[in-house]
Amino acid sequence: MRPQIVLFGDSITEQSFRSGGWGSSLANTYSRKADVLVRGYGGYNTRWALFLLTHIFPLNSTKPPAATTIFFGANDAALLGRNSERQHVPVEEYRENLKKMVLHLKECSPAMLVVLITPPPVDEEGRKEYAKSLYGEKAMQFPERTNEMAGVYARQCVELAKDLGIRAIDLWSKMQGTDGWQKKFLSDGLHLTPEGNAVVHEEVVRVFSEAWLSAADMPYDLPHHSEIDGKNPEKAFLQKCL
Amino acid sequence: MRPQIVLFGDSITEQSFRSGGWGSSLANTYSRKADVLVRGYGGYNTRWALFLLTHIFPLNSTKPPAATTIFFGANDAALLGRNSERQHVPVEEYRENLKKMVLHLKECSPAMLVVLITPPPVDEEGRKEYAKSLYGEKAMQFPERTNEMAGVYARQCVELAKDLGIRAIDLWSKMQGTDGWQKKFLSDGLHLTPEGNAVVHEEVVRVFSEAWLSAADMPYDLPHHSEIDGKNPEKAFLQKCL
Repeated sequence: MRPQIVLFGDSITEQSFRSGGWGSSLANTYSRKADVLVRGYGGYNTRWALFLLTHIFPLNSTKPPAATTIFFGANDAALLGRNSERQHVPVEEYRENLKKMVLHLKECSPAMLVVLITPPPVDEEGRKEYAKSLYGEKAMQFPERTNEMAGVYARQCVELAKDLGIRAIDLWSKMQGTDGWQKKFLSDGLHLTPEGNAVVHEEVVRVFSEAWLSAADMPYDLPHHSEIDGKNPEKAFLQKCL
Repeated sequence: MRPQIVLFGDSITEQSFRSGGWGSSLANTYSRKADVLVRGYGGYNTRWALFLLTHIFPLNSTKPPAATTIFFGANDAALLGRNSERQHVPVEEYRENLKKMVLHLKECSPAMLVVLITPPPVDEEGRKEYAKSLYGEKAMQFPERTNEMAGVYARQCVELAKDLGIRAIDLWSKMQGTDGWQKKFLSDGLHLTPEGNAVVHEEVVRVFSEAWLSAADMPYDLPHHSEIDGKNPEKAFLQKCL
């Protein structure tokens, strides 16, 4: 009935329906016009996410999503030799994995609007404080993620989008354009504050609208109540429901 | 893949994905376990909503919702002879319309968990202030809704649920059990504040859990990242994805 928007990604997508989350804001923006489905998998990198691809996006679906955001990289960019090295994926493979995802989605539906989102910047101080709050003095001295490395992955993501002729949101650069982004947008140096969620929401709405998925231009799925004649209500429903 | 939870109702359902809304909180509670779809239609009464029924819940669906909340009555209970009389539906017909909805959903899927939610209480002072903020001195002297009348509809909703052997949430009574409910739970005398949304969220989670749809007892749709062996990731996906 309504077009579907699928949010595919890691924890930053999984948590997008927490209070003030970018996913729920998007669902509200597309209220009565599109359904927003979360397919966020905390801790996943692109290598693991590839295993989910045909399961979440089967090729033979009669109703593929109208739009999908692909939002990975925060885990792929975890450093080797540090706490989260299990999640590390080399940047060349990260790019290749993203490419496989995009091509698969385009095979599902050539008309699907596919938008890549880069990992957010990393606030290394914030990560350190977070690790200390969890592990106290046992916290690792060295960061498991750096902002510089997240930037390397972000650039590959943006360049891949250009090569494939699809849209990307360079969240890594966008957020760093605001003074105090470290605490303003990131709650633990990596995940989003409500203000950080608002940036993602705004960017996704902007990019969707620049393509062909502007909520303002989409019709309501069913009549607005003001179109219903109290004495002859059936008239309003003739076209769509009767 | 995941079971679906559908929220069917009027504006209080339509607005449930605003910041702090009960719909987005529910989506977060069932994160990675069920999808929450909003089918809220602001201004609708049960008479108009009946026209949508087979459109939203087709009888031949291969994947009917696992659970549906039906949350109408705030508009049906609008008084005759007042500003919103166009939305008024007599209480006997309200009850009959709700019954038709429940029977239709049970025909769609006898296993579907159907939960009726009564209209919330009405803060008549809050409605008056809201009308004044919109229309100034031109605001109607007399309220278009009263708390007493909302209670009449709420009782019929609860009694119908008993008669049909299904679950109901008596929101009208529940909210009035808290001192200062008028401003604490209602933003304009009728719609919900974040605290009011929290009450609905809590009640829906309670009733779903008392039935068989407890998020805590439901499996993740796909492996948690901690189950993935970094060196042999495919093992974790054998059962569900390969």
